[in-house]
Amino acid sequence: MNLGTIIGLLLGLALMGFASFMGAANVGVPVTALFDYISILIVFGGSLAATAIAFKMSQVLHLFRLLKMIFQDDNFTMGNVVDDICKLSESYRKSRKDLESTLSSKPESMPFRMHAVSDGCELILGGTKPDDIQTFLDNNSEYRELREREDVNIMKTLGTYAPAFGMIGTLIGLIFMLAGMGTGGADKIGTAMGVALITTLYGAFAANFLFLPFADKLKGKNEVKKVQDAMTTAGVLMIAYKKHPLEIRDALNAYLPPGQRTKEEE
Amino acid sequence: MNLGTIIGLLLGLALMGFASFMGAANVGVPVTALFDYISILIVFGGSLAATAIAFKMSQVLHLFRLLKMIFQDDNFTMGNVVDDICKLSESYRKSRKDLESTLSSKPESMPFRMHAVSDGCELILGGTKPDDIQTFLDNNSEYRELREREDVNIMKTLGTYAPAFGMIGTLIGLIFMLAGMGTGGADKIGTAMGVALITTLYGAFAANFLFLPFADKLKGKNEVKKVQDAMTTAGVLMIAYKKHPLEIRDALNAYLPPGQRTKEEE
Amino acid sequence: MNLGTIIGLLLGLALMGFASFMGAANVGVPVTALFDYISILIVFGGSLAATAIAFKMSQVLHLFRLLKMIFQDDNFTMGNVVDDICKLSESYRKSRKDLESTLSSKPESMPFRMHAVSDGCELILGGTKPDDIQTFLDNNSEYRELREREDVNIMKTLGTYAPAFGMIGTLIGLIFMLAGMGTGGADKIGTAMGVALITTLYGAFAANFLFLPFADKLKGKNEVKKVQDAMTTAGVLMIAYKKHPLEIRDALNAYLPPGQRTKEEE
Amino acid sequence: MNLGTIIGLLLGLALMGFASFMGAANVGVPVTALFDYISILIVFGGSLAATAIAFKMSQVLHLFRLLKMIFQDDNFTMGNVVDDICKLSESYRKSRKDLESTLSSKPESMPFRMHAVSDGCELILGGTKPDDIQTFLDNNSEYRELREREDVNIMKTLGTYAPAFGMIGTLIGLIFMLAGMGTGGADKIGTAMGVALITTLYGAFAANFLFLPFADKLKGKNEVKKVQDAMTTAGVLMIAYKKHPLEIRDALNAYLPPGQRTKEEE
Amino acid sequence: MNLGTIIGLLLGLALMGFASFMGAANVGVPVTALFDYISILIVFGGSLAATAIAFKMSQVLHLFRLLKMIFQDDNFTMGNVVDDICKLSESYRKSRKDLESTLSSKPESMPFRMHAVSDGCELILGGTKPDDIQTFLDNNSEYRELREREDVNIMKTLGTYAPAFGMIGTLIGLIFMLAGMGTGGADKIGTAMGVALITTLYGAFAANFLFLPFADKLKGKNEVKKVQDAMTTAGVLMIAYKKHPLEIRDALNAYLPPGQRTKEEE
Repeated sequence: MNLGTIIGLLLGLALMGFASFMGAANVGVPVTALFDYISILIVFGGSLAATAIAFKMSQVLHLFRLLKMIFQDDNFTMGNVVDDICKLSESYRKSRKDLESTLSSKPESMPFRMHAVSDGCELILGGTKPDDIQTFLDNNSEYRELREREDVNIMKTLGTYAPAFGMIGTLIGLIFMLAGMGTGGADKIGTAMGVALITTLYGAFAANFLFLPFADKLKGKNEVKKVQDAMTTAGVLMIAYKKHPLEIRDALNAYLPPGQRTKEEE
Repeated sequence: MNLGTIIGLLLGLALMGFASFMGAANVGVPVTALFDYISILIVFGGSLAATAIAFKMSQVLHLFRLLKMIFQDDNFTMGNVVDDICKLSESYRKSRKDLESTLSSKPESMPFRMHAVSDGCELILGGTKPDDIQTFLDNNSEYRELREREDVNIMKTLGTYAPAFGMIGTLIGLIFMLAGMGTGGADKIGTAMGVALITTLYGAFAANFLFLPFADKLKGKNEVKKVQDAMTTAGVLMIAYKKHPLEIRDALNAYLPPGQRTKEEE
Repeated sequence: MNLGTIIGLLLGLALMGFASFMGAANVGVPVTALFDYISILIVFGGSLAATAIAFKMSQVLHLFRLLKMIFQDDNFTMGNVVDDICKLSESYRKSRKDLESTLSSKPESMPFRMHAVSDGCELILGGTKPDDIQTFLDNNSEYRELREREDVNIMKTLGTYAPAFGMIGTLIGLIFMLAGMGTGGADKIGTAMGVALITTLYGAFAANFLFLPFADKLKGKNEVKKVQDAMTTAGVLMIAYKKHPLEIRDALNAYLPPGQRTKEEE
Repeated sequence: MNLGTIIGLLLGLALMGFASFMGAANVGVPVTALFDYISILIVFGGSLAATAIAFKMSQVLHLFRLLKMIFQDDNFTMGNVVDDICKLSESYRKSRKDLESTLSSKPESMPFRMHAVSDGCELILGGTKPDDIQTFLDNNSEYRELREREDVNIMKTLGTYAPAFGMIGTLIGLIFMLAGMGTGGADKIGTAMGVALITTLYGAFAANFLFLPFADKLKGKNEVKKVQDAMTTAGVLMIAYKKHPLEIRDALNAYLPPGQRTKEEE
Repeated sequence: MNLGTIIGLLLGLALMGFASFMGAANVGVPVTALFDYISILIVFGGSLAATAIAFKMSQVLHLFRLLKMIFQDDNFTMGNVVDDICKLSESYRKSRKDLESTLSSKPESMPFRMHAVSDGCELILGGTKPDDIQTFLDNNSEYRELREREDVNIMKTLGTYAPAFGMIGTLIGLIFMLAGMGTGGADKIGTAMGVALITTLYGAFAANFLFLPFADKLKGKNEVKKVQDAMTTAGVLMIAYKKHPLEIRDALNAYLPPGQRTKEEE
């Protein structure tokens, strides 16, 4: 689980909740005055509708997968991947067979943290030339990057439309309120105006507490993946060239921040 | 038909309609309080006028074609195009005649999904050198891209001017209302102010529900076309060089996302 | 004349006028409530003053020439220019003298649509080497582009300052109104506030109906000129190299959109 | 003196002053209702403080020099500089001594408009190789450009913070006013709110009439200097290579707009 | 200590404090009307929560270190570093031993201002080739730059979310106030609205007085570090190549602004 995101969400909700209760108590109204299901419909429904118009259906349905990605962290460090690559290189330097068995023993003894590593090794075993392996891995990572940049865009678009629909909802509420005022319903002005403002609140909250931070999170994750892709590609190629594990470790450590660098275990 | 756009539009309109009815019922005014034909004139007329000033007449008249493009999807997949190219390559490897007849049998057996493919094949039959074919197809796709980027711009410009004219309409309404207040028409303040706000609502709605999502949609479509153009150009050139259909399929599949890749049918 | 711009301006003014009359009639105030000469002074004077501070005097005085440029279209098509270049090439292939007489017969039979063409031909007659002609024409077009980009900037700057001075004028009006309220002039609140808002209206209108669309128009014209410059430079060089008119026409047509391409007349 | 900036400032102040007097007379309040020294403190002090936090002390103290630079124009044209360079080249072609004496006679007969020219000539006399002279002059101009871009940034930053502190001041004023309302000071609402708005007015005015146009002015000046630096560097190198003054003049004229080009005087 | 930042903070706080006291005295309310702990919770808590969602936990915890970095200046000038490098070069030209002892005498006689210098010298002593030293130092500086750009981003993000949560808090306050109005608590309107506005004030203040200037400060510091890194890398390489100290000083001075350049001490 991604601790930062969880803590941020809980902390933010707790704070907002506490502030709302205090604010409600101050004026002597129930805190439920903040809830309005029509406003939720306008803000979330409207943003989703506008996003559905702007993007492909398949990308919008992809949104739930994105949420999962935001909350889920990799259960391995880059150092683990370096270890894996070194072990694989050692096997391949012994014999082709050894690499095969190390690859097939994946589920038990070695969890192969990144698909790219095992995909690359299978290409090596299949006899593909290093140049073609590089082209294949580079293409793969370029395609994924493109798709994931689109995912960030869809989150950002939601974060742009949410406040806009918040304002649209408030305008609708205000127009009805003002129309009602002219026809004699003037005693409800305050309440009606409060209800109208709730939509703006939801829009601002959805954008600044959910969609925009989520977009930033996804963007950060993609940037990490770009470094990972560069590292695994370099690693697989070094396996193919039968470089010594120690040399591989030195070269791959350059991709890691100092704190995550691992020493040789032997 | 483009499902996402249709669903988005219907969903959004249904939500907005439902929310409006609920809001109107709450305050006891008819939902028609939201409609004002002068506001429509100001927002859509003003945005169109400003766009007509900013762009060429021909581009503005192009707008309706753009709407058609937004709602219409290609009735073929990229995989179909790969199939077509492979078939053409097979014919051309047999004989020049065979390619001619395959091209001319277009309407029935092979609908030639992309103009670029048949244009390219005709150039091959006309004896143009592969290098010149490439220049021709590249120029064509560059020109189309430029024109279509301009189409995105025109939609974005509409999305920028719509809220501005919404605000202009509201200001005009408010100024008259305040002028009327000074001369004794104070009992209509609420209604007049509500009417004034309707223009802002229309401007926000037109921009965030129509023009801006449409601009995003067009932008997405253009990006897909760029990949398609690259693929068809590569394909036509491979036909010209009489490459084997299997090799062509492998090479062209690289342009497709994994899910859309097709296997050889034979 | 530039039809799009004229139609846009007239349409926009008609719509705004109609909407204003309807709005004024609704509340029972004269439509002249929208006019306030002090607001015009603040918005247009203030924007011009801020622009005069930001740019060189000569550039600001250039503004009126820009307006002329916005409303005036070229009275020739790119196809005409291609025709001219082909004729000149034909003359030059006959003899140096022939090119001279074709050039000097300019005013009557051939109106030489672009200065660059006749400038280039005079360089050819003067014996300048093709490389130096290219440098000269490239420099000229680069300089013009730089100056014209600055012209777009000055329009955009006006479009940025106009709403700002609109707000400044409104703030001045509001502050006086509120000051007057404290000293007993409370009966004029509505009117005074209406007058204050007029400046915001003028600022929004000047920016979104005049300055910003004008800036977009100039930008579009500059982009057309860039293509024209590239085409005339290519054409003049082909004349210098005594290429065949048919070859020139084929090469230059590549710069034109399909609809404007011309066939040889002979 | 820089005419455009002076005229812009005077025109703007005159217009704003006139509009303010008319506005004040309309409502019957003294025009001094627009002045509030606390608001000046908040807007200018706050913007300066935020800028001092964001930049180095030395850069902030540099601000007054920047103002001088905005109002002061070069008292020479680029054509003068070309003349100087041609004269220097003539001397150097006669003898090293002659260049020395021309350089030392600077104060009386030839005012050496740009430092770069005399710096470069001293390097020539000192025996530095042309390549090293170029490196030296290029480095110098690159450094100056970097520092001057930072100057533009500091002005832009002031233009961003000024409206923000204007809003902060208004919020402080409104909060006190509303607090006072609750405790019985309700008769001062109008005046207090007017005073609160003055800070927003000052912020908008400082940004749009001073800081942002000043930033644009500095940016324009830097761009002119970039062309001047390129020209003087080319000129000094041509002196070093003992090129003929006529050739130098032709080459350097390419850097000038057509209207400023000078003919040889001899 | 960083003088500019400290002075800016104190000056800004003093000004705001003074303006607040004057404003409070004007209306006759205590200046404490500006303080509201719930608003602090919403603005700072909300911004932090949103930032925690958007970034990694480790980066958010890094924030306090960033504050230290903003207030702390290097206790050495670039000229000192040039001096150090020249001394080290002199030792190394004498003997390997001499460099070792100069390096080990660090704490007393020579404070070695930049890690990069001593790291580089140890690589020289360890026998690493100059090319590999350059790769190592370049990689290190590239990684630090990436991490520090992320630090600027986190500050900017706080500066974006702070006003948003300020608005959210104000909306919550307004909605409760309006709800209370409908249920008979109308006498507290002014106070409640004032309290609601405090959150907007805090958001604007936190962004424009703290987060955004801090982000600019960090950005400026990073740019200085980039030049420093380039200079130390060049210096270390020149030590490795046993260049003469005078030559090193001349070359490194090119990286310094004229005022900071040092002369040789011998």
